[in-house]
Amino acid sequence: MASSVGVSILGATGVGAGELLRLLTQHDNVEVVSLISSSSSEDDVSKHHPHLTGFYDLKFIKEFNYSALSSYKHKVLISALPHGSSGKIVEEMFLKYSDLKIIDLSGDLRLKNLSLHNKYYGADISQNVRLSAVYGLPELNIDHIKSTRLVSNPGCLATASTLSLLPLTKSKLIEDIHVFAITGSSGAGKKQSESVHHAFRNGNFSSYKSLEHQHIPEIEESVGASISFIPHRAPLSRGIFVTASATLTSELSQNEVENIFKNFYSKAPFVRRFNETPELTNVVGSNFFDYSIKVLDKKIVICGAIDNLIKGMAGTAIQNLNLMCGLDQKLGIFTPSLRLL
Amino acid sequence: MASSVGVSILGATGVGAGELLRLLTQHDNVEVVSLISSSSSEDDVSKHHPHLTGFYDLKFIKEFNYSALSSYKHKVLISALPHGSSGKIVEEMFLKYSDLKIIDLSGDLRLKNLSLHNKYYGADISQNVRLSAVYGLPELNIDHIKSTRLVSNPGCLATASTLSLLPLTKSKLIEDIHVFAITGSSGAGKKQSESVHHAFRNGNFSSYKSLEHQHIPEIEESVGASISFIPHRAPLSRGIFVTASATLTSELSQNEVENIFKNFYSKAPFVRRFNETPELTNVVGSNFFDYSIKVLDKKIVICGAIDNLIKGMAGTAIQNLNLMCGLDQKLGIFTPSLRLL
Amino acid sequence: MASSVGVSILGATGVGAGELLRLLTQHDNVEVVSLISSSSSEDDVSKHHPHLTGFYDLKFIKEFNYSALSSYKHKVLISALPHGSSGKIVEEMFLKYSDLKIIDLSGDLRLKNLSLHNKYYGADISQNVRLSAVYGLPELNIDHIKSTRLVSNPGCLATASTLSLLPLTKSKLIEDIHVFAITGSSGAGKKQSESVHHAFRNGNFSSYKSLEHQHIPEIEESVGASISFIPHRAPLSRGIFVTASATLTSELSQNEVENIFKNFYSKAPFVRRFNETPELTNVVGSNFFDYSIKVLDKKIVICGAIDNLIKGMAGTAIQNLNLMCGLDQKLGIFTPSLRLL
Amino acid sequence: MASSVGVSILGATGVGAGELLRLLTQHDNVEVVSLISSSSSEDDVSKHHPHLTGFYDLKFIKEFNYSALSSYKHKVLISALPHGSSGKIVEEMFLKYSDLKIIDLSGDLRLKNLSLHNKYYGADISQNVRLSAVYGLPELNIDHIKSTRLVSNPGCLATASTLSLLPLTKSKLIEDIHVFAITGSSGAGKKQSESVHHAFRNGNFSSYKSLEHQHIPEIEESVGASISFIPHRAPLSRGIFVTASATLTSELSQNEVENIFKNFYSKAPFVRRFNETPELTNVVGSNFFDYSIKVLDKKIVICGAIDNLIKGMAGTAIQNLNLMCGLDQKLGIFTPSLRLL
Repeated sequence: MASSVGVSILGATGVGAGELLRLLTQHDNVEVVSLISSSSSEDDVSKHHPHLTGFYDLKFIKEFNYSALSSYKHKVLISALPHGSSGKIVEEMFLKYSDLKIIDLSGDLRLKNLSLHNKYYGADISQNVRLSAVYGLPELNIDHIKSTRLVSNPGCLATASTLSLLPLTKSKLIEDIHVFAITGSSGAGKKQSESVHHAFRNGNFSSYKSLEHQHIPEIEESVGASISFIPHRAPLSRGIFVTASATLTSELSQNEVENIFKNFYSKAPFVRRFNETPELTNVVGSNFFDYSIKVLDKKIVICGAIDNLIKGMAGTAIQNLNLMCGLDQKLGIFTPSLRLL
Repeated sequence: MASSVGVSILGATGVGAGELLRLLTQHDNVEVVSLISSSSSEDDVSKHHPHLTGFYDLKFIKEFNYSALSSYKHKVLISALPHGSSGKIVEEMFLKYSDLKIIDLSGDLRLKNLSLHNKYYGADISQNVRLSAVYGLPELNIDHIKSTRLVSNPGCLATASTLSLLPLTKSKLIEDIHVFAITGSSGAGKKQSESVHHAFRNGNFSSYKSLEHQHIPEIEESVGASISFIPHRAPLSRGIFVTASATLTSELSQNEVENIFKNFYSKAPFVRRFNETPELTNVVGSNFFDYSIKVLDKKIVICGAIDNLIKGMAGTAIQNLNLMCGLDQKLGIFTPSLRLL
Repeated sequence: MASSVGVSILGATGVGAGELLRLLTQHDNVEVVSLISSSSSEDDVSKHHPHLTGFYDLKFIKEFNYSALSSYKHKVLISALPHGSSGKIVEEMFLKYSDLKIIDLSGDLRLKNLSLHNKYYGADISQNVRLSAVYGLPELNIDHIKSTRLVSNPGCLATASTLSLLPLTKSKLIEDIHVFAITGSSGAGKKQSESVHHAFRNGNFSSYKSLEHQHIPEIEESVGASISFIPHRAPLSRGIFVTASATLTSELSQNEVENIFKNFYSKAPFVRRFNETPELTNVVGSNFFDYSIKVLDKKIVICGAIDNLIKGMAGTAIQNLNLMCGLDQKLGIFTPSLRLL
Repeated sequence: MASSVGVSILGATGVGAGELLRLLTQHDNVEVVSLISSSSSEDDVSKHHPHLTGFYDLKFIKEFNYSALSSYKHKVLISALPHGSSGKIVEEMFLKYSDLKIIDLSGDLRLKNLSLHNKYYGADISQNVRLSAVYGLPELNIDHIKSTRLVSNPGCLATASTLSLLPLTKSKLIEDIHVFAITGSSGAGKKQSESVHHAFRNGNFSSYKSLEHQHIPEIEESVGASISFIPHRAPLSRGIFVTASATLTSELSQNEVENIFKNFYSKAPFVRRFNETPELTNVVGSNFFDYSIKVLDKKIVICGAIDNLIKGMAGTAIQNLNLMCGLDQKLGIFTPSLRLL
């Protein structure tokens, strides 16, 4: 079967691109057409992504070549470039090619509020383009995603936090919200620092950017509430686990809260509820968001788990690609986690 | 598309069955028809395999029901029962249903030499059935697997060791063979002991069954040579890494040895060579066997890596199933590793 | 130098006793006189604690023998028995030997409120003895510990949480308190379950006993405030990290809060403040409690870290022993962490 | 008590110096007088070694200051500088100060054979000084260490390998020797590369420098035999485990080999034999070398374990310091491992 979707990827040597490429080996409707890396052109895929040896017969190229996508019904560009360099080129390609669908993994187009954008990212992009980018969280925004050709993919910590809070904050059912999050070492990509040095990360645990992380405004924009947000570094590679502890604004039973979530996510194929707790190993390697709820009097705790590189990045990007191209959103990404790792 | 292969699994609560079920979610030609567990019948799949929540709408049943497979072109029974209990029921079903294809994951049918069988496994199975079981290592035995209806699936340590040695031992090109192997904690399945207690395994490393492991005769039967074999417990969950160090019986260059391997594995889609070393994370989550070769004068070192639960068990089982059912051996299992875990 | 303190340990095969024995190899004033294990009498220490090979020339005995302590100026019994069995024998020995100093590591004597005691532990101990046991958190209770001969050693999660909150709750400076805690797999001792199986714990993260953990009443008794407490299982062996997120009841600057802590802990040799965050690896292997403070408007976050087996158990027990025997509280336990592990 | 030994450390920001400083907090006879770092002078110790907060009231200085040691009976300089820069300054100080005792942790003075020295290290040091440096493995060389004032501290992999082989190779009792070694990520110090990036190291395993590691000539010089040596990267921070597999040159029973080791190490306080296997967690955090022996016909396997930063570096350095200063070699370093980590 000929693939209907042709994909080019910017920033192809990084961890994000590696994850896209890994997932796309299982997607029958998508063909990876070109991989762009300004610094590593001519390299084989396997040099930077050795686990993909045998899967791609492509060399990196220096610049995006629109014409290579011309034969595909859907032409998609995914940018896995870092914050700061991504937005600019995404804007340029978006304005230049009117039938190009673009998914930006960086934060450059995420925040709609200009002063927050300037404070946390500051990329010099036209207000117009930034505002027209659809925030690509399918569980929040599916209809807008289906009809846009420019998606700004959510942050990983923001995805887990927003999905944990959304069903309750939408109706102002909780207040006084504290979100504790842990994240694995793959979140930093290939960048090196003492905090991702194995000898210093293994067996370690610490907090960082307490009350100041750049995903806070993104979460607050999505959920419409103020939160105390404290991220932590955990001694694992993949995965985000968030625990939201809050106060119910009215008396609601465990059962009533579970039903609110069930209804809210009734059409979301990648959301699953667990009784006691989600477990990271049930989502790592998959596109699922798993959650649990605990109500005790007016106290409420929601725990949520995702794979930071999949539901927190590349998996959601493909989910968005599916939606933008009129495909079933599950295509290529409806796979279970490895469980033991 | 209607699936042409119907599968029943014995011992369905264990780690091996969980891995089969996980992999089979991605196999278009196979339908899992029934899951047998004498101790947990009536349980949902997700109770024992929570990562599979949303994938199977099946409850465990108490006994194998042949008639449930009757509508499928290929009827397959996979036994994930432990050594000692598996062989007996496999023998019974093999003799009773003449069109049933059976893959036994246990060691009960592996050894052809009777005294070694009695020493290491000892299951009371007819000599006839044991000898007619084909040893299911596709890279060694593909034609026999294609034409049999009874496969004895290889041991995990044996798979990695045999694949590392076979191209050289077949032609007596090495002698004085020492094989050092490390294995993850998932090899023990769900069984508990201090050696798989997280607080005792984490950060730890030790050897076990030095020169006495039950996979030694299996490897020696396959490669036709005597080996010193020393397995070790490593602080990881999945994966086997073997390093074989030996002496070349004649002068061969690095290049000549590489070519011997290349030719030997020219039709093996799951075997890949790496220059410096294989890495466990390039195979974990996949069905690949990756290897590297180092020759220095008459010294030779071969390193090999597999996922113990996939190429070392469930993946090879599906590869065998594909071959026994006349399908492309890659179906459902040609996926890359997760790489970061 | 002759040791002035003789120690006997009940429950000597477990992880807690192993940790006491490890630490006591470095304590010049203490001699370990006898090790009691009803199930393993006659065994060598190294059978159950192989890392102590070469340090103790003792065999376990079946029952506590008071007379063996008679030549020591200070006679100390430490019970490392589990909840339920510990309190009873501690009560008996306490009433029988009027010059015996006892430290109970279990929870049987911790809660002063009878109904909470009955709900969470329920050991059948006389109200009198339970109430006369001093809660052995030196940073809270040093004078009472110095003058008692019966100490109930704090719980590990309670220690980390209480130390993080105490300076502020004592003066009602915070409200709306949410405490997130993570704990390593050694907390469960040698007991086995899927949650401490290496293949299931490694790379995993989950919550447990959300809002219902047995340490909640212990923390609430110590700090005099209600908390939302959510413990989590982290993929590491040793260590507890707590993050308390709350609301200041009045305007206090970062600096003012730091000074409140500094004053509160001015005489506590095992408490250290870090600027950004404590790190688990700075405390693992040591008796320190490290913490950090972050104030942003009325939001406040305190992070605290301990080694669950040392400051959360055996180290504090020795600190208490030192105090009860009139020694410098730092003796034998003022050592830095390993840092890399 | 006034300390009799004054110590200065070169290269004080690194992992090796951190480990020396950690161990020396427990050594009553040694005072750390000055810490030299050309790049970080004026920094506090705790900036580079946060776990040592509260233990040292010292700032780094730019250059070694001999006069600061003048009041101590024993004046010791330890160089924790990297290969290449260490040897030169060690040579200079050795020639300049005739009562200065020096321990060099680098490899610059290790190899006595000039062509091997030039091939593997190549530091431009006078032949005379290099040859007069005593190889500081106390179990091999104790008398020479006691009477020298210049020690070249052994390599970590070399220590574990040599101690595993020495009792047999000394008397030519084995031949055809294959040594498999695994090492933790702390071996690389603070240097960063993909192989010590947590996301790439965790759950991974690979070989490196197969048959070509720079410790091979060091081991071969010590044991007087040729070996096949294959090091591997394991997913842990601390520790080295070696497995030596060889052929006995004559018939020796398990018992006879055990006695050979027992006699050879009869005066070595840091060497312990285990029956089945050593375990890394029994040595990590300690100065022990633990080993086990397995004989089967003419096959023999010896397994050995050390902490690479202690017995493999800083612990042996202090053991050498004790010997050079006429102290009990156990002082300050006779402590058990943490066991759970």
